[in-house]
This record gives sequence, C-alpha cells and structure tokens, in this order.
Amino acid sequence: MAKEVTSKEENYSQWYNNLVVKADLAENSAVRGCMVIKPYGYAIWEKMQHYMDSMFKQTGHQNAYFPLFIPKSFLSKEAEHVEGFAKECAVVTHHRLMLNPDGPGVVVDPDAKLEEELVVRPTSETIIWNTYKNWITSYRDLPILCNQWANVVRWEMRTRLFLRTAEFLWQEGHTAHATKEEAIAETEKMVHVYAKFAREYMALPVIVGRKTESEKFAGAVETLCIEAMMQDGKALQAGTSHFLGQNFAKAFDVKYATKEGAQEYVWATSWGTSTRLMGALIMAHGDNNGLVLPPKLAPIHVVMVPIYKGEQEHAAIIAEMDSFAQKLRNAGLTVKIDDRDNLRSGFKFAEWELKGVPVRVSIGPRDLQNGTVEIARRDTLTKEFIPADAAVEHIIGLMDKIQENMYARALKFREENTFVVDTWDEFKERIEKGGFLLCHWDGTRETEEKIKELTKATIRCIPIDTDVIMEEGKCVYSGRPSKQRVIFARSY
Amino acid sequence: MAKEVTSKEENYSQWYNNLVVKADLAENSAVRGCMVIKPYGYAIWEKMQHYMDSMFKQTGHQNAYFPLFIPKSFLSKEAEHVEGFAKECAVVTHHRLMLNPDGPGVVVDPDAKLEEELVVRPTSETIIWNTYKNWITSYRDLPILCNQWANVVRWEMRTRLFLRTAEFLWQEGHTAHATKEEAIAETEKMVHVYAKFAREYMALPVIVGRKTESEKFAGAVETLCIEAMMQDGKALQAGTSHFLGQNFAKAFDVKYATKEGAQEYVWATSWGTSTRLMGALIMAHGDNNGLVLPPKLAPIHVVMVPIYKGEQEHAAIIAEMDSFAQKLRNAGLTVKIDDRDNLRSGFKFAEWELKGVPVRVSIGPRDLQNGTVEIARRDTLTKEFIPADAAVEHIIGLMDKIQENMYARALKFREENTFVVDTWDEFKERIEKGGFLLCHWDGTRETEEKIKELTKATIRCIPIDTDVIMEEGKCVYSGRPSKQRVIFARSY
Repeated sequence: MAKEVTSKEENYSQWYNNLVVKADLAENSAVRGCMVIKPYGYAIWEKMQHYMDSMFKQTGHQNAYFPLFIPKSFLSKEAEHVEGFAKECAVVTHHRLMLNPDGPGVVVDPDAKLEEELVVRPTSETIIWNTYKNWITSYRDLPILCNQWANVVRWEMRTRLFLRTAEFLWQEGHTAHATKEEAIAETEKMVHVYAKFAREYMALPVIVGRKTESEKFAGAVETLCIEAMMQDGKALQAGTSHFLGQNFAKAFDVKYATKEGAQEYVWATSWGTSTRLMGALIMAHGDNNGLVLPPKLAPIHVVMVPIYKGEQEHAAIIAEMDSFAQKLRNAGLTVKIDDRDNLRSGFKFAEWELKGVPVRVSIGPRDLQNGTVEIARRDTLTKEFIPADAAVEHIIGLMDKIQENMYARALKFREENTFVVDTWDEFKERIEKGGFLLCHWDGTRETEEKIKELTKATIRCIPIDTDVIMEEGKCVYSGRPSKQRVIFARSY
Repeated sequence: MAKEVTSKEENYSQWYNNLVVKADLAENSAVRGCMVIKPYGYAIWEKMQHYMDSMFKQTGHQNAYFPLFIPKSFLSKEAEHVEGFAKECAVVTHHRLMLNPDGPGVVVDPDAKLEEELVVRPTSETIIWNTYKNWITSYRDLPILCNQWANVVRWEMRTRLFLRTAEFLWQEGHTAHATKEEAIAETEKMVHVYAKFAREYMALPVIVGRKTESEKFAGAVETLCIEAMMQDGKALQAGTSHFLGQNFAKAFDVKYATKEGAQEYVWATSWGTSTRLMGALIMAHGDNNGLVLPPKLAPIHVVMVPIYKGEQEHAAIIAEMDSFAQKLRNAGLTVKIDDRDNLRSGFKFAEWELKGVPVRVSIGPRDLQNGTVEIARRDTLTKEFIPADAAVEHIIGLMDKIQENMYARALKFREENTFVVDTWDEFKERIEKGGFLLCHWDGTRETEEKIKELTKATIRCIPIDTDVIMEEGKCVYSGRPSKQRVIFARSY
C-alpha cells in the first residue's frame, strides 16, 4: 500500500493527521496555522453546509453577509467579549504596500496607516449588533433570524488541521428577539438542530448540555452545546448555541418600541458550527485503514474497481459497470468507476478504503461468468458476492444500513466509555483511560478549576438530555451537595 | 409610497443607490467600503451561486478552499501581479490586542508583530500556485480544475455598493494544464460559461471579447471577458477569464514530468465573477418603480396581496390564496402571501414592485364573486384579470415569458445604443450620449490612452462573438490600419 497510515493504537494524534492528509482532505498552507481544504475534503464540507443550511431555512432563518473586518473599538464594547477574543486577533493596520526603496520586493507603505485598526472577525456579534441597531425600531421588526456562512480568524498558537486552525470556515446565526423567553427558546431550538444534524447526517451521537460559567462563550449569559466522544475517549465540542441576554443590545444600544410604546433592549442569541465538524467526523468513525464516511456525507457513495487481464475482459467488465453505475445514479447515488490503467486493483482498494467510500464493487471475469458482483462495506470491512440482478437494490439498501450501523457503533463506543464515578480516587484512575465521567459537582468554579489542574479534565456540559442520570448527590471532589451529574472529560 | 425612488432620468447614480438600499439588498457598514448584504440581496446571490456552481461542476470543476492570508513576499513573485495589486491591499501586521495601558479600550500589542506581514487576499493566484507546486509532479496530476467561493479585499478609494467595495464575495477558478492549447481552451470554455449564465439566468445580453494589453489582468497573458450595457449606456464588465500562460508556474517553480520524462512548466488559467453581478442585474433591468428581477433569480416569484374589508372577506380571500399558493409551490415557485394587517394594499403593491417580484396576484371580494384573480407583471407593469381556474397555469407560463421578455428588452436596448462610428468627430459627440461605439482601432496603446484621456472611453473588448461586425478598416482616431472593430464605451 502506497500511503501507509499510523495505527490509532500506536499514535492517535499521528493517525488523525495521516487520515486528513493522506485521504486528501486538507493540508497545512504556507501561512502559519491556515489550512488548504482540498477538493475531497471540501466536498464533505459542502454536504454538511447543504444539509445544515436546509435545516436553518426550515426553521425560518435567512442568510446574509456581514463585513470581514471589525473596527477595533467595537470589540471593547462588551467587556467579557473583548477579554475572550482580544488575545488572538489578526489586526489590519495598513491598506497599501509599496516597492521596497532599500531592496527587492514590497514593504508596507507607512503613509497608508489606518486611522483605526481593523480586526479580522473572530466572530461577528459586535459588527452585527452595530448593524441591527439600524434595522430595529419597533416590535414589528422582530424577530430577526439571520445566519451567515463565513471565514473567521482566531490566532491560535497550537494548531491542528480542522480541529484548531487560525482561519476556519463556519456558520454563525445571530438572532434578535422581543422577549427573553423567545430568545431562550431559539437558543434551545438551534442546539437541537445541531444535535439532529450530528446524529442523522454525521452518524455522531452527541450529548446536549449547558456549559458551566467558566466554559461559556465570552459575552453569553448561557451557552448550550453538543458534545461528542472521539475514539481516544476525549470529548469534542461540535456546536454551540448562546443565549446572549441583552448584553450586546446594551453594548450597542439596540432598543425597540413595544406594542405599548415602551422602549426595551432587544434579546439576542448566536450559534455556530465550523469545519471542526470535519475533525469530529474523522475521529469518531475512522479506522486503521482510513476514513469511514457516513453515506449521507460521502462525496462518492460507491466506487467500482474492474479486475481484468487484457483488453477484451476489460471492455466487457467496464460495459457491465457502466450499466450498474447508471442504475445507481438514477437512484441518486454518486458512483465512481476507477478505470486507471496504471494501478493494481489492490492499490485501488486501499486508496478508496483510505478515502472512506461506503461501498466498493469489484467485478472480475469469473463474476461475469457467474452473474455475480463482489460488494465490500467500508464500515464493517466485510465482503460478499451478490447476484448481479440483485446488486443495485442491495447497494441502495446498504446506504441506510451503513448510516445506521455507524451511529449504533459510535453510540455503543460512547456508552462503553461512559462511567458513573463517585469517588475521587476512581476519578483520578479512570480519567487516565479516557471516556466521559458522570460525576456530581458542587457547582463552584473553584472545584472545577482544581479538578482541571489536577487531571486536565473539564466539565464538558451539564446534560439537558434525559438519557443521562438526573439525581442529587455529593460532589466527587469536595463532597458538597450537587443537584445533578455533569460530564467530565479531557477534550479537544 | 413610503420609500420613494429617485428617477433614473433625474439622477442615475442616486436611482441605483436607492434601489440597492430601499429594496433591502445591501447597505454600507461601519467599516469604510465594506457592505452588509441583507437577506433579500443575499438570497439573489445564493441563486447566482447555485446556478454557476452547477455549471462549474458540469464542466468538471471541483470546489476547494485556500487561505485568506497571503505572505507579503508571495505577491512580489510575479512582477505585473504585484504592480496590479500592491496598492490596494489590507495588511495584517499583528496577531494580538492588549488592554490599553493609558486609557480605556484595547490597543495593538507591540510584542505581537508578525515576522512577515500578511496580505488579505485580493485574488489567490499566488497562494494557490504555491500550493499547486506540491500537488503536481507528473502529467498524471493534470489537469487540476479547482474553484473557490470566497471573500476578497481590494482597498478601493471610491466605493459603491456591489459595484466596487473594499470587501466583496466572488468565485475564482484556478486551473493547471499540461499544454498551452488545453489552458487556452479552458479560458475560452469558462468565459462562455459566464456568457451563458448571464444570458440565461440574469437575462443579460453580454458581448464576449478579449481585453487589450492595458486592460488585462495583472499577471495574465490574455484576458477574456463578458461586457454588458447598463441603462445609462455605460459598460459593465461582468466576468473575466484569464489565460495566465506559464507566468505563475515560473514564479512558483511548478513543473511536471511529461509522458516522455521531460520537465515542463505548467500552464494556468484563472476566472472570476463577483457580487458585482448584483450591480449589473439591478442596473440592466430596474425601472423607476424599483428592481425588476428575472424569475430565475428572484427569491420570491409570486406575491399575493388580499384586498378586503372585514374579517369575513379576509378569511375567504386568504383561503383562496392558500389554495393557489400551494398549487404554485407544487410547481416549484416561491410564493409569499402578504397578509400584514397594518398596511394598505397600495403600500404593499409599491413595496413588492420596489423589490422586483416578477408576478403579483391580488384577489378582492369582487374577484371571488366573478371567479377571477388580478395578475400584474413586474416587467411590463401590465395587469389583467384571469379566470381563477386558469390562473395557476397562466402564472407558471409567465415565468418563462418574463424571463424571455427581459432578455429581449435588454438586447433591444443594447442594439439601439450600439453605433458604428467611423470619424473622430462623431466619436466625440456620440460618446457623450453613452452606448457602445463600434470603431476601428490601430492596435496601439498610445491611441487607446489618448482616446481615454480625451473622452474617458476605454476599449471594453475586442469582440470574439460573431454578432459584431468583423471587417478591416482604419482607426477612428489615428487613421492607421485596423483588423477589426472594437467596442469603446465609458464603463463602471
């Protein structure tokens, strides 16, 4: 096999990087921390965008576009917000280059300094609320339900492809409401849209929960999130939905006239998911042969590899494949016939496994004689011979089966790696092996910080789904009273 | 009417701005030269993206994503390219803000200066060819046919919504080929894809042509373009496709091994269209009542306005409208029932005319009695009563009729404002009234510059379509020999 992948048992982190790079999803660019998303990776992201965008529109949202740049002074208007983002901002200070007077190349033109520096958006609450100020006069202008698909920049020091990059692609919803109740309902609605997308399209079981004070978004009153478990037992935050209260409305003085004519500050939410989801997809499902893609997000559903000797066999097999492919395409599947003549079929098998294509079909001369085709499933790595006249229906049926199996397998993995932990000794021992620890916590920031310091585990969320034990108890660290269990884990 | 629009005869420029702002397409933001694209405007852009993206994929292209930032030194690698773009670059010099030690707010942290400044991409040839270098080894890696949808920044001093903004949205195709012939064929193929999109979706008649040396893209060997005429007789460049020769391959040392084992530089093209197309759409079709949208790009195809007194009439009419709307939606149309109870129907009529909705349906109590509906066409501003049972089919048929009529009308306008001009006196007089002047030109940069200096007219293109007179003659300015007529016009 040309492109060998480090096994995840040997080195999980290197396994991940191998998959991203060798499956042609993305690579590092010449710009520190910025990635190039390659066509195969981008095709998966496009499918994610497509399905999420449909879900946003079905829930009444519209897309819009706001500026890339944010005046520096805007960031300072919300105190927690600026503290959260100021330290990782790309800052534009000049608007022109000039020929270098002292040598080759170009230099910044000192005469082209901006009066006020511009920050490349790390998130758009400030520029958007400064805009909403002009859109909102009365209760009749509310709600505003906007989303934008955009790039954002956070100057992270340690970057990893998809998981943490200086520039990433995302969507950010920003809504404005007349009442607190309506804004909270929106916050909850959108975190459940994310959960549905993760479960049904990414085959990713996620837990819906609330962030603690110390883990919430800078500027939010409350942050809801979906948390997923990766195969190394670490948690990955896959989407967040923030109830912003009136924080940004107050910072940008956005009021509306109520039906009764009073002036009130507007209530806000924001919610986002990013290309980080690509990282979650890879790490939740991949194996030592490469990616395993859920059919709903796979750019190619079925790859066909001909096995032949000589031109006569080749022609007969390709004709058979063309006929199959057409029937599968008519059923809405994307099919690739790998007819490259300079590669062995074993090499092709390995390459398409690396790329995670859900189903592989191979046909050889004996299959033609017997009226069979060989069908391999990527998720189970199993192969079977199917009568040619039943193959199309079989493959179409496999799409749902694979999608469901992947979800079930990931859920089983999470369940096997989720532990109810009630003593501090057990916590310390258990956390070293990874997984989610369901523990009581006394609700204080001190305990949370101490546990993080001692074990690197953080509270991923306070679950609001019912599939997690809801009961009172005593904090695993301090022994003080606790109202419900929370999820501790190490995380990405 | 609440939102009055300046007539285009009175002040064309203000008419344009009125349409953009009052029809809720876009507005200026707090950041100089950067616009906010509002939901209604963005919905049109999304449709443009959707159809163009399909056409790109049908012609074998794949989407990818490359970094927002370009190291300053990359720009200098291609001499003409840096000269074309260095003067209008947003430059990132720092990666962190800090609390202002001398007062409120935040300031740039002087310790966070970048080693090498980063330019916010004005176009991506340099970063992409630096990437392609690693993707290309042999002829088997070619062609590469990538496109990206992205934002770009060019620090224009005079900005106008959609037409010329500091940040704009666009797509940029970047392809790599083994031979010159293949790259030229790609350049031509893509300019024709643009022409097809403009004609069939935007209802915009465009002329396909070649740019002169002085008007071509900085770094290109040859630039092809589509040029459209606006209603003030000025030209607007609506898309460009560049044959880049081996310029960027040489600048970034990108070679491939031929079948025979020789090392050759790779051949390149790039091609782009932007949110500027929104400006073209508005200016080509709008009238003094507002936007006129071609059905294929209209976010709303049909608006329905109930005319009623009292709740009983209202209920009966809305029930009738719901039933109509459902039938139209089943036929793939987007329908809006404007049931706002705080606005008069005259106000609603004006608002939806302003927004350019192709068809308006109104139903009143007398219509219910008579079994009719009133149908108004936005393009012709005509109204007619149609029997209710024929209305759905009639409206569906109107979509194609309106699309075709808008194209025909724009084409007629262009033809009426295109003049064959053979003398310099006629040129000077004619150009003041606007329009395209078909003139002979001696092919020199001097003549081109002199004409521009004297009349502000430039050579929009050297047509390569056959619907423009191809014949030899004498230059309209110098009298020297010319091989074919070119198009002179003032332009956006």
